[in-house]
Amino acid sequence: MHPVTQPLKVALLGCGVVGSAVARQLTDDAEDLAARVGAPLELIGVAVRDASQPRPESGVTPDLFTTDADSLVTRADLVVELMGGEEPARSLLLRAIEHGAGVVTANKALLGTDGPTLYAAADERGVDLSFEASVAGAIPLLRPLRESLAGDDVQRVMGIVNGTTNFILDKMDRTGAALADVLAEAQQLGYAEADPTADVEGYDAQAKAAILASLAFHTRVATGDVHCEGIMGVTAEDIKDARKIGMVIKLLAICDRTPDGVSARVHPTLVPRSHPLASVHDAFNAVFLDTALAGELMFYGRGAGARPTASAVLGDLVQAARHRIDGGHGPRESAYAELPILPIARTHTSYFIRLEVRDEPGVLARVANSFGAQGISIESMRQGVRRSADGLATLQLVTHPAADAALAATVEGLREVDDVHDVRSVLRVEGL
Amino acid sequence: MHPVTQPLKVALLGCGVVGSAVARQLTDDAEDLAARVGAPLELIGVAVRDASQPRPESGVTPDLFTTDADSLVTRADLVVELMGGEEPARSLLLRAIEHGAGVVTANKALLGTDGPTLYAAADERGVDLSFEASVAGAIPLLRPLRESLAGDDVQRVMGIVNGTTNFILDKMDRTGAALADVLAEAQQLGYAEADPTADVEGYDAQAKAAILASLAFHTRVATGDVHCEGIMGVTAEDIKDARKIGMVIKLLAICDRTPDGVSARVHPTLVPRSHPLASVHDAFNAVFLDTALAGELMFYGRGAGARPTASAVLGDLVQAARHRIDGGHGPRESAYAELPILPIARTHTSYFIRLEVRDEPGVLARVANSFGAQGISIESMRQGVRRSADGLATLQLVTHPAADAALAATVEGLREVDDVHDVRSVLRVEGL
Repeated sequence: MHPVTQPLKVALLGCGVVGSAVARQLTDDAEDLAARVGAPLELIGVAVRDASQPRPESGVTPDLFTTDADSLVTRADLVVELMGGEEPARSLLLRAIEHGAGVVTANKALLGTDGPTLYAAADERGVDLSFEASVAGAIPLLRPLRESLAGDDVQRVMGIVNGTTNFILDKMDRTGAALADVLAEAQQLGYAEADPTADVEGYDAQAKAAILASLAFHTRVATGDVHCEGIMGVTAEDIKDARKIGMVIKLLAICDRTPDGVSARVHPTLVPRSHPLASVHDAFNAVFLDTALAGELMFYGRGAGARPTASAVLGDLVQAARHRIDGGHGPRESAYAELPILPIARTHTSYFIRLEVRDEPGVLARVANSFGAQGISIESMRQGVRRSADGLATLQLVTHPAADAALAATVEGLREVDDVHDVRSVLRVEGL
Repeated sequence: MHPVTQPLKVALLGCGVVGSAVARQLTDDAEDLAARVGAPLELIGVAVRDASQPRPESGVTPDLFTTDADSLVTRADLVVELMGGEEPARSLLLRAIEHGAGVVTANKALLGTDGPTLYAAADERGVDLSFEASVAGAIPLLRPLRESLAGDDVQRVMGIVNGTTNFILDKMDRTGAALADVLAEAQQLGYAEADPTADVEGYDAQAKAAILASLAFHTRVATGDVHCEGIMGVTAEDIKDARKIGMVIKLLAICDRTPDGVSARVHPTLVPRSHPLASVHDAFNAVFLDTALAGELMFYGRGAGARPTASAVLGDLVQAARHRIDGGHGPRESAYAELPILPIARTHTSYFIRLEVRDEPGVLARVANSFGAQGISIESMRQGVRRSADGLATLQLVTHPAADAALAATVEGLREVDDVHDVRSVLRVEGL
């Protein structure tokens, strides 16, 4: 194992819900993070507008809050910007980069309008600038685009990158309700803001499309270059018509590389129900890629929320920290733990079992009892058609999860039960 | 833009279908790769068993083939191992690492049995060891696990990581056929090997599960630690029964982190049809993750094939090359091109249009003609219910892709047509 070096100094700019979740995780998961980085991550300050306001959910001690972000960023090895908006975020990030800090940001508005300035500054100074959380929240998408697919050619990026509008359109599709009613409900549930303009007019997706097109095609695309239409014109009748022809309406960000150049657009789009994007429900995000070598790829997950966004921010932070230490040849695999490996007998799972039983009153209860006796509960039971020729019937059961050994023993026991003619099939079940 | 440094020397071990695709791409895409790396990648040799055998599909000049892999690896900055099997792959990789080369491999058998030896050697020497292609082929999965999710805690990995068995089970589900018949067909189509043991007995998935569990849980799991059951016992009746209760059978690799340790297993598994893994068809792969912060994530794509695998290998190679040059602070965004950005008018797409038309003979033909006159062809047309009250009927059309400007102009033109009472809805369509 590598010797653990001295702590890396982390500055946090902004302490809203995402900032609080990041700060909380830096404390709660400090030991694991230090092992993965090769050095402890020390939070040296949190820049906020009002340092006297308590933020207990962040777990940050009051003396770490400061209103002097300018000075804070010059003292840090790593700066995490979660303030949002263009200024002062841009100036602070540039200042941090100038001082040689690796920077992490989730600021799609800034990146969409002025990404190239930041990219160039980080590149010039030889420091990390990463922004996984700016598009599709928790989904590892930008790093795969920048790194994993660096030897391939991306031809198309097509994604659901706004959870609010997907929630609304999905709900309209499922219930047949009108947009205004579903929007009101989304606002009540907290899925949509009181002022939903940025989401429903497509502006949020527009900035993300600019970032995606830039990374995917290695070229400069700004938010204003992206054609943008929102969902306010989508009617219940449109959704119904789409359904009739086997389609569903999604707000998509679509970026294409053509022989003539690139195009990027956001608009409500009909997609066939057989398309992988059609089965993205609720507020989930998903991005579909088409590349020259890999072909079709899709990434799916939560696009927003404090903890999912914190996952993306922390992943960037750990990578930037690793690069500070060892030149980024990758995670230290030799820091592996030696966790115990459980045998299959101790693994918890559900079983699907098909039995041939005597078709007599009371059999079903007696079979159920042999599970109950082992403390295994039955999720569902289904009796097949009676076959009068041999007086047997099939019985299918799905159990609730239990230790594999207990399930296996119960099934073995069933073979000895008089009512049970045969155990025809035993398969495990997951994802219930 | 960074000054381009001197070429990085690349050695290729093995020149089968994947090796040939990698070599071909190194030549065909040399300029783009050099721009993304910051230095040209120069192929200095390809180690093969028989150097006299021509391999025209690789595009490699005959003088680069050698049988002396031992010497080749000591002369390279970057070594790509695509021989497979445990020896001599292990010795050659260790030798390359010892000489300070960054190494890329797709060798799941070797990593599954002896990954930790290789990880430790690379870590000790401070060089890259990457192996994205070893699990789920083209899908960027291992890099996200090692890097993007480095600040999160993965609790479960559940995936379809063998395309052959997914093809077989999917076909059984769709057609009701027996396994033996579908297997025979898969062999004829080239989806299954003449000796399908490694796939159908689950051994291929078993090695991949070991790699996934190791990376996901930062611990050591070897192939032999993974409980493994293949698909040979799955019957058409099982599939039919699963269908009746809203489930589908998939061969899954499942790795769990529990308070007591970790478990890893491969077996046929019933999953609800509503689960994202249920809609993975044909020979596609997909891996579903459950993490503490990000929640549910899924990665989907092609798990095998020469070009998809080459995509993963080349992504690793570009990253390793970047790390050789600049300590890996990330891709150089300032190397961005300035590609033209096409306006929406020049973007190609399909339209869905709903019209209210006079319900008279010949109207449908006249509407179709106005598209034809603009060179736009109609994919489908559907006439709604006649509303006798006002003598109008609705007409829905989906066009084939055309330039957005031409479509918009045609729709505008329709508004002037006497037969057309109203253009009720115009939406774009993708994914047809």
